[in-house]
Amino acid sequence: MATFGKESGLGGAESSCTTPLTTPMATPVSTRSVKWEKDVEDVAGDLHRPLLYKRCTNTTSQMAIVGANTCPIESLDYEVVENDVYKQDWRSKGKLQVFQYQVLKWVLALFVGLVVGLVGFFNNIAVENIAGFKLLLTGNLMLQNRYVAAFVVYICCNATLAAAAAALCAYIAPAAAGSGIPEVKAYLNGVDAHSILAPSTLLVKILGSILGVSAGFVLGKEGPMVHTGACVASLLGQGGSRKHGLTWNWIRYFKNDLDRRDLITCGAAAGVAAAFRAPVGGVLFALEEVTSWWRSALLWRTFSTTAVVAMVLRGLIDYCRSGNCGLFGKGGLIMFDLGSRQATYTATDLAVVILLGILGGLLGALFNFLIDRILRVYSLVNDKGARYKIIMTVIISVVTSCCTFGLPWLTSCTPCPPELARKCPTVGRSGNFKNFQCPPGQYNALASLFFNTNDDAIRNLFSAGTDGEFGVSTLLTFFATVYTLGLVTYGVAVPSGLFIPVILSGASFGRLVGTLLGSVSGLDAGLFALLGAASFLGGTMRMTVSVCVILLELTNDLLLLPLIMLVLLIAKTVADCFNKGVYEQMVRMKGLPYLDVHAEPCMRSLVAGDVVSGPLISFSSVERVGAVVDTLRHTGHNGFPVIEDPPFAPAPELCGLVLRSHLLVLLQGRIFTRRRVKTGAAEVFRTLAPFDFAKAGSGKGLKVEDLDLTEEEMDMYVDLHPITNRSPYTVVETMSLAKAAVLFRGLGLRHMCVVPRTQGRPPVVGILTRHDFMPQYIRGLYPSELPR
Amino acid sequence: MATFGKESGLGGAESSCTTPLTTPMATPVSTRSVKWEKDVEDVAGDLHRPLLYKRCTNTTSQMAIVGANTCPIESLDYEVVENDVYKQDWRSKGKLQVFQYQVLKWVLALFVGLVVGLVGFFNNIAVENIAGFKLLLTGNLMLQNRYVAAFVVYICCNATLAAAAAALCAYIAPAAAGSGIPEVKAYLNGVDAHSILAPSTLLVKILGSILGVSAGFVLGKEGPMVHTGACVASLLGQGGSRKHGLTWNWIRYFKNDLDRRDLITCGAAAGVAAAFRAPVGGVLFALEEVTSWWRSALLWRTFSTTAVVAMVLRGLIDYCRSGNCGLFGKGGLIMFDLGSRQATYTATDLAVVILLGILGGLLGALFNFLIDRILRVYSLVNDKGARYKIIMTVIISVVTSCCTFGLPWLTSCTPCPPELARKCPTVGRSGNFKNFQCPPGQYNALASLFFNTNDDAIRNLFSAGTDGEFGVSTLLTFFATVYTLGLVTYGVAVPSGLFIPVILSGASFGRLVGTLLGSVSGLDAGLFALLGAASFLGGTMRMTVSVCVILLELTNDLLLLPLIMLVLLIAKTVADCFNKGVYEQMVRMKGLPYLDVHAEPCMRSLVAGDVVSGPLISFSSVERVGAVVDTLRHTGHNGFPVIEDPPFAPAPELCGLVLRSHLLVLLQGRIFTRRRVKTGAAEVFRTLAPFDFAKAGSGKGLKVEDLDLTEEEMDMYVDLHPITNRSPYTVVETMSLAKAAVLFRGLGLRHMCVVPRTQGRPPVVGILTRHDFMPQYIRGLYPSELPR
Repeated sequence: MATFGKESGLGGAESSCTTPLTTPMATPVSTRSVKWEKDVEDVAGDLHRPLLYKRCTNTTSQMAIVGANTCPIESLDYEVVENDVYKQDWRSKGKLQVFQYQVLKWVLALFVGLVVGLVGFFNNIAVENIAGFKLLLTGNLMLQNRYVAAFVVYICCNATLAAAAAALCAYIAPAAAGSGIPEVKAYLNGVDAHSILAPSTLLVKILGSILGVSAGFVLGKEGPMVHTGACVASLLGQGGSRKHGLTWNWIRYFKNDLDRRDLITCGAAAGVAAAFRAPVGGVLFALEEVTSWWRSALLWRTFSTTAVVAMVLRGLIDYCRSGNCGLFGKGGLIMFDLGSRQATYTATDLAVVILLGILGGLLGALFNFLIDRILRVYSLVNDKGARYKIIMTVIISVVTSCCTFGLPWLTSCTPCPPELARKCPTVGRSGNFKNFQCPPGQYNALASLFFNTNDDAIRNLFSAGTDGEFGVSTLLTFFATVYTLGLVTYGVAVPSGLFIPVILSGASFGRLVGTLLGSVSGLDAGLFALLGAASFLGGTMRMTVSVCVILLELTNDLLLLPLIMLVLLIAKTVADCFNKGVYEQMVRMKGLPYLDVHAEPCMRSLVAGDVVSGPLISFSSVERVGAVVDTLRHTGHNGFPVIEDPPFAPAPELCGLVLRSHLLVLLQGRIFTRRRVKTGAAEVFRTLAPFDFAKAGSGKGLKVEDLDLTEEEMDMYVDLHPITNRSPYTVVETMSLAKAAVLFRGLGLRHMCVVPRTQGRPPVVGILTRHDFMPQYIRGLYPSELPR
Repeated sequence: MATFGKESGLGGAESSCTTPLTTPMATPVSTRSVKWEKDVEDVAGDLHRPLLYKRCTNTTSQMAIVGANTCPIESLDYEVVENDVYKQDWRSKGKLQVFQYQVLKWVLALFVGLVVGLVGFFNNIAVENIAGFKLLLTGNLMLQNRYVAAFVVYICCNATLAAAAAALCAYIAPAAAGSGIPEVKAYLNGVDAHSILAPSTLLVKILGSILGVSAGFVLGKEGPMVHTGACVASLLGQGGSRKHGLTWNWIRYFKNDLDRRDLITCGAAAGVAAAFRAPVGGVLFALEEVTSWWRSALLWRTFSTTAVVAMVLRGLIDYCRSGNCGLFGKGGLIMFDLGSRQATYTATDLAVVILLGILGGLLGALFNFLIDRILRVYSLVNDKGARYKIIMTVIISVVTSCCTFGLPWLTSCTPCPPELARKCPTVGRSGNFKNFQCPPGQYNALASLFFNTNDDAIRNLFSAGTDGEFGVSTLLTFFATVYTLGLVTYGVAVPSGLFIPVILSGASFGRLVGTLLGSVSGLDAGLFALLGAASFLGGTMRMTVSVCVILLELTNDLLLLPLIMLVLLIAKTVADCFNKGVYEQMVRMKGLPYLDVHAEPCMRSLVAGDVVSGPLISFSSVERVGAVVDTLRHTGHNGFPVIEDPPFAPAPELCGLVLRSHLLVLLQGRIFTRRRVKTGAAEVFRTLAPFDFAKAGSGKGLKVEDLDLTEEEMDMYVDLHPITNRSPYTVVETMSLAKAAVLFRGLGLRHMCVVPRTQGRPPVVGILTRHDFMPQYIRGLYPSELPR
């Protein structure tokens, strides 16, 4: 029992928690594991613990009622499983097939770009039309001075859209809520959370994001686009959805975790590229924030994916220019043309910029701290069920509507600046200088920010040559409202990105600083808004190069580069003193067993043997079928060492590692013998093809319950040699844990065999998996070793 | 002998080739090694073989005369050597020291940026002034119609500058010739070629590059800037030059290969940033082309280095605007402002762009093929001695001068376009529409390209709104000349970059296509030039993202992004069908043992035990001093397995790995005992500090000849435990070679122990080093396995 507790406790990294443990097995009850489990239970009431992780721990203590869906995390395996099946497949591959594979890889990547581009554009058109219709309707009522009616219409529209989005999320695909970037990040680190890339998640993500953004929430569509891109890539890489009857078999070469990972990286990059129309920024975002492994070849493939996205978007926007897309005019697909500003700046300007960076870093760190706390509180509500999720979403929506509609009334009307060439106040959907309740010739500064889509609000804040448009009180009100709404909105059950809230509050903050220090610095207020946005992005997300390039691509002004770089560097440095980046923090909070690049320093004092709790189960190279089936039924392990013992070897030695999925396929194929003899690979290939062993999509492979073996068959023998990975990576038990972690993380392994140092002992001491390297686990084993 | 041949044969990856082998040792003469050596000898006359590699092979057969400088390649070691010394050092490190280290890391990176920025600017000012003076002098003579005098002055200036550059290279630092990017690339892959980062190389690189560019060669200063950046970083990271009496001791934390690698990556990025004024492009260049390992943290540090470079350059250029820098006006530091061009394009335009990409790819692949052949021929000349190098350089200089001065005479004068707002013909140093020999009111199109600095020529080609300026014959002549001169110039003994020749020929080629297809496409001729340059860069260097970003940063027009991306992708795809990128090709040609990401497919059929030729030498954990010294004297190995044998263990087992450099330090410290007992780490630290074991700069550590031990000391014992790395990465002998290669490359190892699979054998079978994974070596062992 105890050893199972350890396994599932950590989000069940290697356990699928299938059936209760009833048969007494040869599993040594390690005191260490017990200690750790107890430790976990002790802190069960603590708010600081990971959320998912907590849920899994609870179920651990109730092993009898554990279902397959309760511990939905599975590790991915990037190791080449060099068994006979693989070798057979590899040898039989002709040049044509290799070429076909190469071409397909590219076709898929480009196709991902095409689909993501189309989805991104559809998303924008839908948002612009729904939100635009809503704003026009309200605006018309306002023009007729029917303010109460306008407010009712506005609030009802928003609440309905919000409820629809929340219902979709709550009932169809709970995994679609939130930004999705932490989950994609974890997936690319080797953690497959349940249904995070499922077709239903994709659908809800797209629709929910459209509804959520249209509902006027302070949230963005950028994070959801990244998740959407990853889902599209995963779906295409799996050859469609088997559940929904859409499959292509020619895609079988891509049925492995490595190719999927590459494709999903392309998808994530395409998502950013589509959201911001920033192809280079997309590639860099994928590189800097999302992926854990990177190759030069991938850079080049990702780049072509985002190039396709950029071209698709460009083509479609050109098409829409002629007015074919409803209310989608020049708005949508944020691209802030700040106008040409040859930025020449003085030392005072630099000092102001440095101040902006420091303040942005502080506020960003505070944002991360607060959002962590708020999400933990929200999770208590969300845990209560779908209905509560919807109610909470509607409440936040009403609060948001009240703020955006109500706050502009507090501000007085401003006369339009006479020198302005543009129309003031603007009529129609978008634009600066909103009239709201003001008489003609005047505008309401707060309404110009609040009573608009978020994209338009950012555009207004960034606009150059409008230094006097927004007063200090306007900016302060807007900043405080958006900062708070951004914090409370993120946790609701709709697909929601953090980019827009952060840019909005950063831009208003920057403009505020610019307005306050206008006499000291000669920089434009719009430029201050841009730098403020950069400082906030740096302070919350802690990305540097990608944010910088995204902002440059958004504003199309490379001369701003040195200033943006400076502000980003300072903001990140300052914020890093307090906490981690917001996505990293969420990965941790969700209890996803994320492997860091750097091993914890304390791991240097431990060795591999210290964390391994013995090889729970191993197989003989030719094993009794019944023993294999029993083991598969009664454990959740996914990898088992295979021992070559007499008569096949003079003394027991490690033959290799066998995977649960391969064992199931082999058993299903019924290649059994009555006597304990080697049958060899040829016998296997008479019944099965190499492709039968290819990895199915997450949660789709064979299960042990699917096996239907007779009593007689259970007494026969099965030769495991053909499916045994003969070259598993091994470490000696005295290997320092830190170095073992470097190996594990560096090569993206799922299992690592620990071998004894001295001779005359069993040939394998145990298996290390992802969770053995988790600081929480190690902390449980050796509380004194880890000062935290 | 045979086993040594194997070691040094591959450029001496692991051998320092110190003293001749005279004592008979217990080294089993492996037939495999002999076979391979023979194989190498067989092809000695083949022009296709690596150059350096050949040189080392020659010396291998004359072991008696091998000096330390003949086989100048050493591997770098990125593994954490977890011995007692390291642990002691790590445990004693307080929080303050960790903080100090972190801060220093940043200070160093920023300092590298500052220095590289200053050097880059100095370089530009010098070039602009020297070349400008030369051109003004010649131009004035031309204005007085003294054409012969002008030609003589021109040719003499060029030849003198060229001879000076070549003399510096030939006599002081031969490693400074060429672009240096292949060497830096190899260094960051773990191969330290002799004196590639030495202070003398840095000096000659800077001066030689200034002289070479001023001499009017068709070569650039961009490649050399990358090398310069790397040298600066290496020098700062080593704490100055010990040889020249400039050392800082506070820098001791950085005396390891890992921190040096990081710093040099920053330096290389800074070099690109300084050369192109492209900070983001610099980071991406380092990422895409130069480094072999990458971490997110490095992205962020590299980015700040390039940010400093950008700011330094910006500040200095602002200073120079007021005319303080001689002839450095608006020229220099290429930044091509193409003017705002809202690029809208049709399907026909796209077709033309695709054609441009295909042609660029083909011509780029041809360029790579030809340059490889030419370099091999040149190396025969260069091998003959310094004098021949200088003569060849002067000859190429004279040819170049004749072309640039002579060819404009072949073209007729063109009347200035009347609608032109700018001055035509231009007078003075730089500018479009050069007058040359033409009467007033007319200009010589070819002279506008030839009789200028390369930067100005590119600016003229890229200039917008000048569609009719250059005729077809002009462009064709210029393209053919520059393409040829670029090919023949690269191999001469001056620091020379490939970027400028490639951009020049690409731009003229693009403009040629644009002029020919002007009626079909509506794109500007300057834009065609830019796209042509992109296609050539993609075709030769095979970089995508970084070239794209560099071009964007050069032209400051993000709207061109989709077109540039398209042309780059097509050009790279086409060229990749024929050969490898030019830098990769040069790394191979220079015989540097570069480890590829992808293992050769044939390695799948081999296992680690197949390439290992036995553990040549191993030590007992407590060994006789004489045995250690003898072994160090008579082998070139840098790592030795340490065996724990009775009485310290019941049976022989692998204790770990010990490094030559650590052994030498320990022996120098004279911590010996009369009896064979463990002394432990405490005894070592009574005499030595952990810092004494830090790695010295390349070629600077202790040598075995420096030891001066008495006969009595030679008979004593030394305890190797304290310096033994207890956690070396090991593979089982049956591990597939491909997977062993993935481990070796993935973690950046220098040595990897091969352990036996079965019990009852010696605890280590052999050691794998970099050269064991080289295709050439494996091909020598198993000619039939590698179809190639």
